[in-house]
Amino acid sequence: MTMRQDCLALDAADPLAPLRREFALPEGVIYLDGNSLGARPVKSLERAQAVIAAEWGRDLITSWNTAGWFEMPRRLGNLLAPLVGAQENEVVVTDTTSINLFKALAAALYLQKNTPRKVIVTERSNFPTDIYMAEGLTSWLDRGYSLRLVDSVDELPAAIGEDCAVLMLTHVNYRTGYQHDMAAVTALAHARGAVTVWDLAHSAGAVPVDLHAAQADFAVGCTYKYLNGGPGSPAFIWVPCRHQEAFRHPLSGWWSHASPFDMAPAFAPCSGIGRALCGTQPVVSLALVECGLEIFSRTSMEAIRRKSLALTDLFIALLEQRCAHHPLGLVTPREHARRGSQVSVTHPHGYAVMQALIARGVIGDYREPQIMRFGFTPLYTSYADVWDAVEILRQILDDQAYDVNAQRSAVT
Amino acid sequence: MTMRQDCLALDAADPLAPLRREFALPEGVIYLDGNSLGARPVKSLERAQAVIAAEWGRDLITSWNTAGWFEMPRRLGNLLAPLVGAQENEVVVTDTTSINLFKALAAALYLQKNTPRKVIVTERSNFPTDIYMAEGLTSWLDRGYSLRLVDSVDELPAAIGEDCAVLMLTHVNYRTGYQHDMAAVTALAHARGAVTVWDLAHSAGAVPVDLHAAQADFAVGCTYKYLNGGPGSPAFIWVPCRHQEAFRHPLSGWWSHASPFDMAPAFAPCSGIGRALCGTQPVVSLALVECGLEIFSRTSMEAIRRKSLALTDLFIALLEQRCAHHPLGLVTPREHARRGSQVSVTHPHGYAVMQALIARGVIGDYREPQIMRFGFTPLYTSYADVWDAVEILRQILDDQAYDVNAQRSAVT
Repeated sequence: MTMRQDCLALDAADPLAPLRREFALPEGVIYLDGNSLGARPVKSLERAQAVIAAEWGRDLITSWNTAGWFEMPRRLGNLLAPLVGAQENEVVVTDTTSINLFKALAAALYLQKNTPRKVIVTERSNFPTDIYMAEGLTSWLDRGYSLRLVDSVDELPAAIGEDCAVLMLTHVNYRTGYQHDMAAVTALAHARGAVTVWDLAHSAGAVPVDLHAAQADFAVGCTYKYLNGGPGSPAFIWVPCRHQEAFRHPLSGWWSHASPFDMAPAFAPCSGIGRALCGTQPVVSLALVECGLEIFSRTSMEAIRRKSLALTDLFIALLEQRCAHHPLGLVTPREHARRGSQVSVTHPHGYAVMQALIARGVIGDYREPQIMRFGFTPLYTSYADVWDAVEILRQILDDQAYDVNAQRSAVT
Repeated sequence: MTMRQDCLALDAADPLAPLRREFALPEGVIYLDGNSLGARPVKSLERAQAVIAAEWGRDLITSWNTAGWFEMPRRLGNLLAPLVGAQENEVVVTDTTSINLFKALAAALYLQKNTPRKVIVTERSNFPTDIYMAEGLTSWLDRGYSLRLVDSVDELPAAIGEDCAVLMLTHVNYRTGYQHDMAAVTALAHARGAVTVWDLAHSAGAVPVDLHAAQADFAVGCTYKYLNGGPGSPAFIWVPCRHQEAFRHPLSGWWSHASPFDMAPAFAPCSGIGRALCGTQPVVSLALVECGLEIFSRTSMEAIRRKSLALTDLFIALLEQRCAHHPLGLVTPREHARRGSQVSVTHPHGYAVMQALIARGVIGDYREPQIMRFGFTPLYTSYADVWDAVEILRQILDDQAYDVNAQRSAVT
């Protein structure tokens, strides 16, 4: 039987515990929603002030050069690269995940242009915008392309047939926390002649990722979840060196031009990862991404993973010890290799229970159907937080202290 | 002969003069580059602090609802709408100008899908990214679409033939400051059966624009120039009510879904201007757009235009009075109706002269070939600024105090 005291002992021995001081979290809150919006790095306020007052306000237009604004997507990409097993000059931080996915999918289809392959395979349970962007691309190209949605991982081998051009998957599922075996699935896709596009939205900064070891083809991801870049901070895209020369997509804006300031009327793409850029980037939001990435440089994804598994194991164990008499269902895999850094749990009144948790300072979120999501972020979540969260959940369930008529708000 | 004293008198009588206090401009700088990056509104620092410390740091994920993050593209679009003659719920602030142009062009081609029209007409002198995005779109569609570049406005009538699907123009040219007659050109395009897409990057906040009066079809624009939204702040797109039902583009991300939080696996577009949205937006950069727009609510585009023309007239007159003995060439039209809010001037050593100006605190910029650009922003530029800028230019030219071997930096 795990006691709160045991959790305090784990915290005392936790090598990552000091990093919590790098985040500005409100008092009295147990924040288990870093899988949706990461917490605020303390330094972000100072950094924003410097960008706004000094770089923009004082140095004005010269900051495109002197403050490195123009180079920021590449520089941040290089800081992010080691977290996902990418090499230098293979990642840029830019645009949104949706837009970057569009680029990656277009480039993947381009690689298949001389083949009869016309199908993009993905999971029906993939994050919706990924499916929508693929729909937008294929229906607009109007050349016989289509989408094939599978209902379970087991269906993947049969679905990746001779007609499959691209396998597009989110590495860690946003709802269930299921983690694909990236290397095995990529090997399967390659054996069948398909190109892979991975969405790392719930992976980057959450679980170890080694894109090169997995021989993945393209990847995109989010910086405002586990990477703590700030609300809606620009996303990233990875194009390995081996695919950069053939990297083509229709969003050919001036930031991907070989000589953008020559203002030539014909498009000529630059070499390298710059091809994944398009238009002028939101500098203030972009600059804050660095504050999140900096914190990762003080530890390793291995250390983070170790604690992540310990936190999620603890959460599952405590649910079983303390809430076993309630109708909770574990959605996230128990198997470590298949688990992301979240635990999803069903309850018949999942939405109402989550609202009650939030009202008592335990911030998770809700996803249909009936799923309460709890994200565990080893940089700022303690073992005692886990204990306290489960205790508050137990009280709410025991007392039925939730409003079964609670209405969902627009955004949860 | 205009004297500095006359300029001071004009400033004393200027109804817009008090608005300069709303901007944080460095001492000793005459900033004539607001056509590239607008100056910083004083309130932007406080606003960024509120978004970062309170909305993100303290209220965390709940701010998507409570701080209105999710609604911000629409809310800011409604604030911007009156500046360009748009109605409520016709504008969103989102993504980049390049990406928004891609959406607008795709939608314009969609309107022509049942016609044999396959050509996008634009000017070779258009801002390059506009041409690049059109190239990207047409070459990917691979259905016989092509671009036709004209070399002068006079060629437009002949170029907009029976094969022309879309006329894509930037209302005010970024290099020359030439302003199209939007209503007349749109009428010509419509008479020939073409759909119009206007880029307002150098118009919004700079010159009066009345999209509805001109019966324009689609428009996009920039918020970080004359609208002072901050470096790289998100752009805008206008879709008039009459085209919203038929508005289709391939960047169908979840923010344009009818029920984004149902997480349905099939895309179903929402009604209205939300269709122009795609992915999650960079909230901090987006929020700062409001600080710039707020200032416009204290005056009118008519008052701004009046002063803009007075400032540019004064600049041209002073150049002619004080620098007539130097090889300066006026590029920007003298005719008021054809002039934006900038004055472009050639000099055989334009780049070197501009560097010397910048070193003496007069910030303009340079565009090939030989063009010095001076942007005039009535909200924070005074008549005395204009006098002082010309006086410094005169001294530099008289003394040949510029380095003819000056090398262009990466970004200018």
